[in-house]
Amino acid sequence: MSYINKNFLLNNKVSQELYFKYAQNMPIIDYHCHLSEKEILEDKAYKNIYEIWLSGDHYKWRLMRNYGIDEELITGKASPKDKFIAYCEALGKAYLNPLSHWSQLELKEYFNCDIEINKDNALKIWNYCNSYLAKHKLTRTSFIKKSKVKYIFTTNEAFDDLSIFTKINKKYKDFKVYPAFRTDKFLNIEAKAFKDYLAKLGKINSLDDLLNALEKRLKEFIKVGCVASDMGVENVYPVTSKETAAKLFKKRLSNKTISVEESKQYKGYMVYALLKMYSKYNIRSELHYGAMRNNSTKMFNKLGLDTGYDSIAENTSIYNLSRLMDKLDVENKLPPMILFNLNPNANLEIMALMNCFQDGKYHGKIQYGPAWWFLDNKEGMEKHLKDMTSLGHIGIFIGMLTDSRSFLSYPRHHYFRRILCNFLGNAIINGEMTQNISSVGKVVQDISYNNAVKYFGLNK
Amino acid sequence: MSYINKNFLLNNKVSQELYFKYAQNMPIIDYHCHLSEKEILEDKAYKNIYEIWLSGDHYKWRLMRNYGIDEELITGKASPKDKFIAYCEALGKAYLNPLSHWSQLELKEYFNCDIEINKDNALKIWNYCNSYLAKHKLTRTSFIKKSKVKYIFTTNEAFDDLSIFTKINKKYKDFKVYPAFRTDKFLNIEAKAFKDYLAKLGKINSLDDLLNALEKRLKEFIKVGCVASDMGVENVYPVTSKETAAKLFKKRLSNKTISVEESKQYKGYMVYALLKMYSKYNIRSELHYGAMRNNSTKMFNKLGLDTGYDSIAENTSIYNLSRLMDKLDVENKLPPMILFNLNPNANLEIMALMNCFQDGKYHGKIQYGPAWWFLDNKEGMEKHLKDMTSLGHIGIFIGMLTDSRSFLSYPRHHYFRRILCNFLGNAIINGEMTQNISSVGKVVQDISYNNAVKYFGLNK
Amino acid sequence: MSYINKNFLLNNKVSQELYFKYAQNMPIIDYHCHLSEKEILEDKAYKNIYEIWLSGDHYKWRLMRNYGIDEELITGKASPKDKFIAYCEALGKAYLNPLSHWSQLELKEYFNCDIEINKDNALKIWNYCNSYLAKHKLTRTSFIKKSKVKYIFTTNEAFDDLSIFTKINKKYKDFKVYPAFRTDKFLNIEAKAFKDYLAKLGKINSLDDLLNALEKRLKEFIKVGCVASDMGVENVYPVTSKETAAKLFKKRLSNKTISVEESKQYKGYMVYALLKMYSKYNIRSELHYGAMRNNSTKMFNKLGLDTGYDSIAENTSIYNLSRLMDKLDVENKLPPMILFNLNPNANLEIMALMNCFQDGKYHGKIQYGPAWWFLDNKEGMEKHLKDMTSLGHIGIFIGMLTDSRSFLSYPRHHYFRRILCNFLGNAIINGEMTQNISSVGKVVQDISYNNAVKYFGLNK
Repeated sequence: MSYINKNFLLNNKVSQELYFKYAQNMPIIDYHCHLSEKEILEDKAYKNIYEIWLSGDHYKWRLMRNYGIDEELITGKASPKDKFIAYCEALGKAYLNPLSHWSQLELKEYFNCDIEINKDNALKIWNYCNSYLAKHKLTRTSFIKKSKVKYIFTTNEAFDDLSIFTKINKKYKDFKVYPAFRTDKFLNIEAKAFKDYLAKLGKINSLDDLLNALEKRLKEFIKVGCVASDMGVENVYPVTSKETAAKLFKKRLSNKTISVEESKQYKGYMVYALLKMYSKYNIRSELHYGAMRNNSTKMFNKLGLDTGYDSIAENTSIYNLSRLMDKLDVENKLPPMILFNLNPNANLEIMALMNCFQDGKYHGKIQYGPAWWFLDNKEGMEKHLKDMTSLGHIGIFIGMLTDSRSFLSYPRHHYFRRILCNFLGNAIINGEMTQNISSVGKVVQDISYNNAVKYFGLNK
Repeated sequence: MSYINKNFLLNNKVSQELYFKYAQNMPIIDYHCHLSEKEILEDKAYKNIYEIWLSGDHYKWRLMRNYGIDEELITGKASPKDKFIAYCEALGKAYLNPLSHWSQLELKEYFNCDIEINKDNALKIWNYCNSYLAKHKLTRTSFIKKSKVKYIFTTNEAFDDLSIFTKINKKYKDFKVYPAFRTDKFLNIEAKAFKDYLAKLGKINSLDDLLNALEKRLKEFIKVGCVASDMGVENVYPVTSKETAAKLFKKRLSNKTISVEESKQYKGYMVYALLKMYSKYNIRSELHYGAMRNNSTKMFNKLGLDTGYDSIAENTSIYNLSRLMDKLDVENKLPPMILFNLNPNANLEIMALMNCFQDGKYHGKIQYGPAWWFLDNKEGMEKHLKDMTSLGHIGIFIGMLTDSRSFLSYPRHHYFRRILCNFLGNAIINGEMTQNISSVGKVVQDISYNNAVKYFGLNK
Repeated sequence: MSYINKNFLLNNKVSQELYFKYAQNMPIIDYHCHLSEKEILEDKAYKNIYEIWLSGDHYKWRLMRNYGIDEELITGKASPKDKFIAYCEALGKAYLNPLSHWSQLELKEYFNCDIEINKDNALKIWNYCNSYLAKHKLTRTSFIKKSKVKYIFTTNEAFDDLSIFTKINKKYKDFKVYPAFRTDKFLNIEAKAFKDYLAKLGKINSLDDLLNALEKRLKEFIKVGCVASDMGVENVYPVTSKETAAKLFKKRLSNKTISVEESKQYKGYMVYALLKMYSKYNIRSELHYGAMRNNSTKMFNKLGLDTGYDSIAENTSIYNLSRLMDKLDVENKLPPMILFNLNPNANLEIMALMNCFQDGKYHGKIQYGPAWWFLDNKEGMEKHLKDMTSLGHIGIFIGMLTDSRSFLSYPRHHYFRRILCNFLGNAIINGEMTQNISSVGKVVQDISYNNAVKYFGLNK
């Protein structure tokens, strides 16, 4: 029997009441993830638990490497079954790692399985889950429906085929899927494939061509329901002039090498220009920063991007972020933004800064996004909640997302809600906030679902 | 009924014993605040709770903006009553924000009011408090006396009229008010009004003129009881030569533009030169750093300084601070200092550094100031206490101040004392420190009042 | 009676079971310390408790200075007895400072003394301990044996006399002492004595001569059991070319001044070159960084190195560390490393990065060293454990060391084990991890001793 019981992470009666009465049954809006819209439309069944869990999840791969498992058993030629067993072995002693909690919760929620994950139980879980999958013919959308997901924002390239979204939203009635507009490929001017991506937007001979093409595509995105965009940079750079960016763009078009410094200059302008564009269409603009990517050249050459070799960058962005937001604000072009930060050292710096740019048009125009990636764990979330309540206003928080490539990751919303309810429940028990549980319950529902739905202008 | 009861933040019997037996009734020394000495002397009554709470408090304005309240209802033309109601609405869901605790404590301590602050109760509180004010004719000093404040250090410009202090200290017997010597206006060489401020000191044609004028004024301050000074900078800069500073000063006098870099160079010398001057007169020297000010140009142009648009700067000062203190120390000119830091990332760096400059002449010659501004909350204080006990010596700590513009902010001393007593009480209960409660109680009294009084050379 | 009882830091039954059943009686491997191998061999008895505690411990000196004790009573001419009394006075109010816990634990474990340390009891403790010492004739190795230490790695200069280790390991049967290879003196090119140290390696006319001489010495170290090396730098610098380093080395040989920037360039290459060398011999390579040393010039001139005037450097190393490790990894020359960081702001950055360089050959090839020096306290360890479980894998952790100059510091291993057991015990009680206590107990034993023994290739 797994250690996860009904009251997991809910350490007192009030926390439990908040969770079971208010949070648990709220629908889910997953406003940032990396699910494939094609897979949602096709809705295939899964072959086995390996395919679901381990075929593409670099979080799990990292944990296995950390434990000292050979790469053959991770991304190599070993059999799915052997890989699964190796994962269970690594997980068995990874006490308090979020993967331990998530994996156990996923077994429970989707497979009704209470077996504790460890080396001894690996084979038993393998057999149990595979039978369950076969018997219940679980497909991609089974998990979406089971978890009462109402909205999913996938993250899409500007050149992606949008007709799939129309088809999806015709096919399914229980949930809506909308694309979020992602432009990283047009920020990463230093990348080998930069010009290939440009080509996908048509004939692009200048920075203006690019910006026009992106705006045209954004309008198409909006037609199929897009209300959000996303950008990711290692750090926030100083805003440069359009002239500088245009010159660098020309340089890149003529196949000259772009230095690291020049790449930052180009991005400095582009982040500004895109946010300005998003403001025009009232696009909620996600800015992710703080990841140091592809640390291992050896493994990048072997496995490519997003395979578990990223880490947390040093925190150096706050002054530049201040100047970026101020410039947009002065021009009345600051869009509603969601700031995602990967270095908890910057939590307070960012929260203090963003609250200089709130206004009366939103409950929380500038949002501090939930604890993300390396911070998406109990520690990270609790720090986030402590920092947010100390410096800001918890009542306006738009809450959780999965940021996941897996259809099984919705229990992370429940994980977050448990932590939220326990955080508030403890404070109530300790007499540090209102004792009016039903009004707190209302705020819990807002953070779980309502605030985000309202923020993105959707229907409940 | 408000959630704040007698044992607020005191989670066990020992914490309660420490607070009620030792801390609660200690007098208050508020060694850094922004009260107006003129108001203290005039001692007018208040018109209404809006005037007390919302007419000038940018902490509260920020929280309202964050919640999404329109500026009209914050600093705009809306009625005091509507603004008050809007504040109560924002506060009602701002769970665990320090303003929630402070506001509720202020109602309790000064109005004997237990009504919980939220939208529904707003009008009731408005009426209750205004009646109470009218009935009891509460004036500025009512709050000072009620809270047993013995010493107040206001923060004063070098050119301020000091005769007010003589009058105050003649008029009132329960408490003393002394000015702290603040020189920021002579550090901020880049400010528009720099030369106007210089003019207030008389004829200033060189850096030497300025330093001589400041020293002359400092002696005047000392005559009316001044024992402390204050300086604020965004970060600590490298100490530059007098020649460099003098050249930049001349440049500024001739109305040439001073670059950001030059401004840092000037400040780099000035901070050093002033600390050296303070050492000569044994002035306890407060150094506040880490604020990034006026992030919103739009609102700065509309509302000016100190209106809720500041934030926390990145932490980059430790090496420069080391060199500054060492240079002064080598010259035997290091004054007793109180270091105030706004970025908790730097807590340990600073505590580890400052303990390299202690000596046998003080219990804690170099003090780490209490959690300040954005850190002046339960989280910030608890981290401060944990860091201080881990790396330093809690027994020598000079404790709390308000840093406030409001006459109602003394409950923050009680808030701090509750957190302190609970911190120690928990450690006692957990068997992590001495079980001799009366000796701990003595230390609590020292931190609450005695240490500061002794540090500043005052009478108990 | 001291506040330290049997269940000190063990707040529940499970924590207690984990500690008493699994942790307490495990042997100790102290894989990094600063004990003198000469003293181990000579094994003299101690004269008094002052000699043991205060004659050389800069941690204790700092605390005394912080409390405001005159230097005469710390490193000056005052009598041992008066100095001891002064220390007890300072400690008596240093609530929750690790020195308070350590000192009290040392009295208990080695003197069977339960007297609480404070001013009133100072003389009593002085008399008691000195009688005890005289009666039991406690020598250096008494403490090693009493604490069941099996392995000690001293930190040795490349030019140290290694014959002592052969003698020690012949003389004592209960424990082994091996040197760890330390090269800081050859990194600190800016130091006055640099050329004197070179001379101790023979005739060194070039960087190649130095590297060859060091490799030759490393082989000698290996012959007497060395399996570990250590390097310390303020921060990790960019890897420079061999040409650059060789040129700077020549410059230094010709007695020209090396600038701070040049010194960083030289170290940038040397750290890389030495790690590469260590990889060849599979030497576990400790890298200590983050200390800002000798902040007080005045006291450095008076007392020299390592006298309590160091502090924590700003955190700026992560990008350089990434490039250093990647370069070695690409060349297949990345040794097993233990990273020691002194700024907790960098915990997560480093843990996220190092897990990009794990491989299947070790359980935890790249280790995050335990909380160290300024972080070697309850707060620091708990943060370390939280960060490690959130981002990494606790099961592979090689655990504690003392880093100490004192023969009495082994209770710090027990202190760490109590904190570890309490951390896990709390999580078990809260239902956040497996309830299988015997399997957790096994992991506790691994972290206490087995993992390190295995990591260093020693026998249990």
